[in-house]
Amino acid sequence: MTKVAIVGASGYSGEELVRLLLSHPHAELVAVTSRQQAGQTVAQVFPKFASHPRARALRFVEPNAGLLAKQAEVVFLALPHGVAAEFAVPLLHGGARVIDLSADFRLKSAALYKEFYAHDHPAPELLCDSVYGLPEVHRAAIRGATLVASPGCYPTSVLLPTLPLLRAGLIKPQGIIADSMSGVSGAGRKAELDYLFVECNESVRPYGVPKHRHLSEIEEQLALAAGVPVTIQFTPHLIPVNRGILTTLYLAPAKHFSTAEEAAALGAQITACYEAAYASEPFVRVLEGKALPDTKNVVGTNVLELAWRLDTRTGRLLVMSAEDNIVKGASGQAVQSFNVMCGYPETAGLL
Amino acid sequence: MTKVAIVGASGYSGEELVRLLLSHPHAELVAVTSRQQAGQTVAQVFPKFASHPRARALRFVEPNAGLLAKQAEVVFLALPHGVAAEFAVPLLHGGARVIDLSADFRLKSAALYKEFYAHDHPAPELLCDSVYGLPEVHRAAIRGATLVASPGCYPTSVLLPTLPLLRAGLIKPQGIIADSMSGVSGAGRKAELDYLFVECNESVRPYGVPKHRHLSEIEEQLALAAGVPVTIQFTPHLIPVNRGILTTLYLAPAKHFSTAEEAAALGAQITACYEAAYASEPFVRVLEGKALPDTKNVVGTNVLELAWRLDTRTGRLLVMSAEDNIVKGASGQAVQSFNVMCGYPETAGLL
Amino acid sequence: MTKVAIVGASGYSGEELVRLLLSHPHAELVAVTSRQQAGQTVAQVFPKFASHPRARALRFVEPNAGLLAKQAEVVFLALPHGVAAEFAVPLLHGGARVIDLSADFRLKSAALYKEFYAHDHPAPELLCDSVYGLPEVHRAAIRGATLVASPGCYPTSVLLPTLPLLRAGLIKPQGIIADSMSGVSGAGRKAELDYLFVECNESVRPYGVPKHRHLSEIEEQLALAAGVPVTIQFTPHLIPVNRGILTTLYLAPAKHFSTAEEAAALGAQITACYEAAYASEPFVRVLEGKALPDTKNVVGTNVLELAWRLDTRTGRLLVMSAEDNIVKGASGQAVQSFNVMCGYPETAGLL
Amino acid sequence: MTKVAIVGASGYSGEELVRLLLSHPHAELVAVTSRQQAGQTVAQVFPKFASHPRARALRFVEPNAGLLAKQAEVVFLALPHGVAAEFAVPLLHGGARVIDLSADFRLKSAALYKEFYAHDHPAPELLCDSVYGLPEVHRAAIRGATLVASPGCYPTSVLLPTLPLLRAGLIKPQGIIADSMSGVSGAGRKAELDYLFVECNESVRPYGVPKHRHLSEIEEQLALAAGVPVTIQFTPHLIPVNRGILTTLYLAPAKHFSTAEEAAALGAQITACYEAAYASEPFVRVLEGKALPDTKNVVGTNVLELAWRLDTRTGRLLVMSAEDNIVKGASGQAVQSFNVMCGYPETAGLL
Repeated sequence: MTKVAIVGASGYSGEELVRLLLSHPHAELVAVTSRQQAGQTVAQVFPKFASHPRARALRFVEPNAGLLAKQAEVVFLALPHGVAAEFAVPLLHGGARVIDLSADFRLKSAALYKEFYAHDHPAPELLCDSVYGLPEVHRAAIRGATLVASPGCYPTSVLLPTLPLLRAGLIKPQGIIADSMSGVSGAGRKAELDYLFVECNESVRPYGVPKHRHLSEIEEQLALAAGVPVTIQFTPHLIPVNRGILTTLYLAPAKHFSTAEEAAALGAQITACYEAAYASEPFVRVLEGKALPDTKNVVGTNVLELAWRLDTRTGRLLVMSAEDNIVKGASGQAVQSFNVMCGYPETAGLL
Repeated sequence: MTKVAIVGASGYSGEELVRLLLSHPHAELVAVTSRQQAGQTVAQVFPKFASHPRARALRFVEPNAGLLAKQAEVVFLALPHGVAAEFAVPLLHGGARVIDLSADFRLKSAALYKEFYAHDHPAPELLCDSVYGLPEVHRAAIRGATLVASPGCYPTSVLLPTLPLLRAGLIKPQGIIADSMSGVSGAGRKAELDYLFVECNESVRPYGVPKHRHLSEIEEQLALAAGVPVTIQFTPHLIPVNRGILTTLYLAPAKHFSTAEEAAALGAQITACYEAAYASEPFVRVLEGKALPDTKNVVGTNVLELAWRLDTRTGRLLVMSAEDNIVKGASGQAVQSFNVMCGYPETAGLL
Repeated sequence: MTKVAIVGASGYSGEELVRLLLSHPHAELVAVTSRQQAGQTVAQVFPKFASHPRARALRFVEPNAGLLAKQAEVVFLALPHGVAAEFAVPLLHGGARVIDLSADFRLKSAALYKEFYAHDHPAPELLCDSVYGLPEVHRAAIRGATLVASPGCYPTSVLLPTLPLLRAGLIKPQGIIADSMSGVSGAGRKAELDYLFVECNESVRPYGVPKHRHLSEIEEQLALAAGVPVTIQFTPHLIPVNRGILTTLYLAPAKHFSTAEEAAALGAQITACYEAAYASEPFVRVLEGKALPDTKNVVGTNVLELAWRLDTRTGRLLVMSAEDNIVKGASGQAVQSFNVMCGYPETAGLL
Repeated sequence: MTKVAIVGASGYSGEELVRLLLSHPHAELVAVTSRQQAGQTVAQVFPKFASHPRARALRFVEPNAGLLAKQAEVVFLALPHGVAAEFAVPLLHGGARVIDLSADFRLKSAALYKEFYAHDHPAPELLCDSVYGLPEVHRAAIRGATLVASPGCYPTSVLLPTLPLLRAGLIKPQGIIADSMSGVSGAGRKAELDYLFVECNESVRPYGVPKHRHLSEIEEQLALAAGVPVTIQFTPHLIPVNRGILTTLYLAPAKHFSTAEEAAALGAQITACYEAAYASEPFVRVLEGKALPDTKNVVGTNVLELAWRLDTRTGRLLVMSAEDNIVKGASGQAVQSFNVMCGYPETAGLL
């Protein structure tokens, strides 16, 4: 058993971390923090966990990094960017390993961070040590990491479908378009008019165009795989579901195709590429036959599912992915990294 | 044409008043106020009205009762209770007629107001002059009123089905139960966590039990019709729709019935009672045959629809009603009162 | 490990049984049947289970009672009423134990069955042997049963809150009113216009009034507890959520109360009654303090939560309950009975 | 007043035509047909229109083209493709003017029709006479038309934002990508499992990739404007709203830009282009400032709203549009054409 704590556990990602860690076979949840909820039990704040004895016993406390570093071996940070980095420093100094769900340690470049997040990085000296917590891609590095930067929800939905193709040279690194739809939990548990039920229900809308913050980590990871700088187009939309991201990717195959035969040959390469990348991955599901991704098939799970189509009319490759933005896109993936870091079976607590 | 103004036009009732009055054939919307939105045009605040030239021209202003009383002949107040009364006084003194959508002038008793609203009434001297703005019931009084208290959304859904039966002596005034479900717009456009999309979607919950504020006006109006004090049971629930209230009423017929024949005889009386009350009313629809109310059939309209069933097993009369909480339950009904007050056809701007 | 099969596994209850039994620590799912889906794997029919190896291997077959009785020790029937009874007979003769999720074996009286289901009971000789599968109430009988009739979703939401009070004599058996709201999965996976997205979304409507079929089993179980015949009023409503039932019960305390002191005394008795009934039950949660039931806190779990309020104004006791209609209201409860029947921990596979 | 009839009035487009034509100041609805609903009144089939006297009087009849051609001057066809053409022929021969909401007369090429609709065109001789009913583009031709092919919902959302830019040479005709999200009413009122509430709610999914039928009319209209053949990429998604289409278009400006200055210069041209095309159009709203399209601002109206952004990082032009798929995307646009054909104000009955 590993002692774990969650800092900032009252938001949607924090709540999902609580759920996953309460029932994790190798984690003992020793502390949850929240300024607003301090003093209340987990069961009071999240009635849905009230049947769990630990949820009735454990109380939220004010965050205290020094104390947490002594209580817990691994600390999950579910805090806003900027704030997370400030907590990570004393936790790491105190000897805890940190899994940060914010954007603070996802980029290698403090300058890029400032460009996209509009303030100086609070702890740039840690950027070189942090590991981008996408286990399917950076498993070995996660194993030895003391600081894991768990990926954003949109980036996960873009990177897992794209990286194997890029590394295999099957698609061009230029001209990638990612069109995404996200459920409202992606906006966080914030009391803002824009996210009221009446404002979101029976509504669909783009936002954050054309330069959403998640572009920075997507492009950095794509560039790592491609070996060249990558600039992509990314358009997020808000749709009236609680959870789920559906991303449609428009990709240019490296080799031109227009006939059915050429498409079949290229298709065989794509199949082989995804097979090599994901056949043994428990949390990536490549759909077969006529099946297309549907968020309702992955919500509540740590699985990302994807399907692809070659369009002989346009010469493009379409890849579509679906995930639960709060699980594979946030807390589930963080627990997956936790399993990797601690040497537990990667699926522990996630099936 | 009558010059009208709306005070507090940035909430859901205010927005609906704007919609109805912009296209009203006999109303000229001369002013809309909102502290938060002052300076912006109606089209900027409510993009959905941007095609209307007046919405592009008219700007929100800070509320100024003295000025409004000069500009407008009729002023609609879409303000929180307590605040509304403070505005009504100078408006009435300034010569304007006032239609208040808050609860401030719905009760005749200041003591009852204090019991249910937890503060002293700000203008108790006006309570005797105000008219409860349910046109199907108080049409004559509305015609000459200078101050109309437009009914609450739940009360409308309870009173229209119940009052004719009570006045006709067909049901007992004791033991009435009203079980209601409301869409989330009923909570207003407030940035509170409880009304976030994620907190309301895939959720149903009772609230305000057992003593919701609307009980006070429901019971006062029922008592007026019954000639005796009336105490009812009322349970509101929040459901994930934008608009609509569905109320199921459990009533005790004055005359016992248990056979099919007795039910048929009583049913004929109920039919005749509703026929007398509502056959010529444009905004109350008594369903026939097997049809039952469904909020989707009334949303966006000023119509309340109702159906009833006699249960020979239990001896009870069930009446079910559906309305749009923001139209017949608020702004549409207020415009209906406006039409009555000004002598316009009662359906003007409401079909 | 116990070998289990599911007959009629392509509906919503069947799908949930598949989910629960695939991951059950003591169940081996050896067969799933569906006329429409025969030949396909579980993973093809339910893509969301595709990560489970058994779901990729197990194929739907045509139902064959004789064969199933040899393959499985316990067979779950997720079939329409009428059809279920015809399957149960050969399964029981073949030596299997049966857990039926339909209404076919819930009543003791074949005449009552005919009154409510409009056809002769297909196997009346089995009615005396079947056990009503509400473990919190009939645990001992379930333990030795060969035929368990798993309760309906609405009945569960009414009976668990009501039975302890009735047995303790705290409420009168007369005059009970149950007002319920159900998610659309309650209507089953049927291609009917009434249950299309567009017909249900932004809609609330009552249905099946005043004599819904579930009345029969509710009243029979209440009568068993009360020792006298019981007739109740029950009104179901359809609301736009996938899952969840919220039931509000209007009850008459046996002892009159009107003062705060009397309410406090009665409240202490109610608290003690529920404490005695449910303090050690893993799947019933009596809420404390100001908390009220909310379906979002129980969806996906086998928990029913309830809260109660005494209303000194009306002298009534209100009890409100929330459950997942497909889990505690159907498949979860069936698995709970399975655990009881087989001597496994009652929470096995359900936490 | 013009006498009008609707053939196939029981689907969602038909229902909306009924709504619009019942309250149209210059249309008299003389007949509505539906095989399934024949004999019932409009009010019985659509309770929401029951307050309209005409809806209570008018009964659905079996479709009879010969009779309809005598009764009505203009006939709206809200029928499936293939069936619509068979009705259009006798109606036109009988002297009626026809506005067809199906895909049957939208293409000029019978071969293209066969390629996309998988059957021979039932009346190819009419293809040269039919006019594509997009009033903002083909107003003059609609004026004199006897057969108007009202555009598809997706095509409207793609063509209105794209055509002015293409005609002005501001964008390249190659490489256009349209990513669309549609509400479930777009699938029609069909009793199919895929469109049940439970299957659509909390779900997002692509479908019909990569060769949706609407591609044919989109590409034909784009080619007309560009003067060269055009092949586009089009991906529709189904999202859980009743109504609304949001389309995000990825376009390549004809002139390369990368600096802020170049973007500003190009932006001025785009502004001028849209201003020229739509400043005086009542049903196209080009958003200003930071506003982005949101379906909730256009649902229930005949307005398409759009906004655009130049991305200096990628060199692309993004245009986003929102419309009500059943109004501007179907029935409202058909009524708009009706107004043009009959010489009525184009906004009659549509504001």
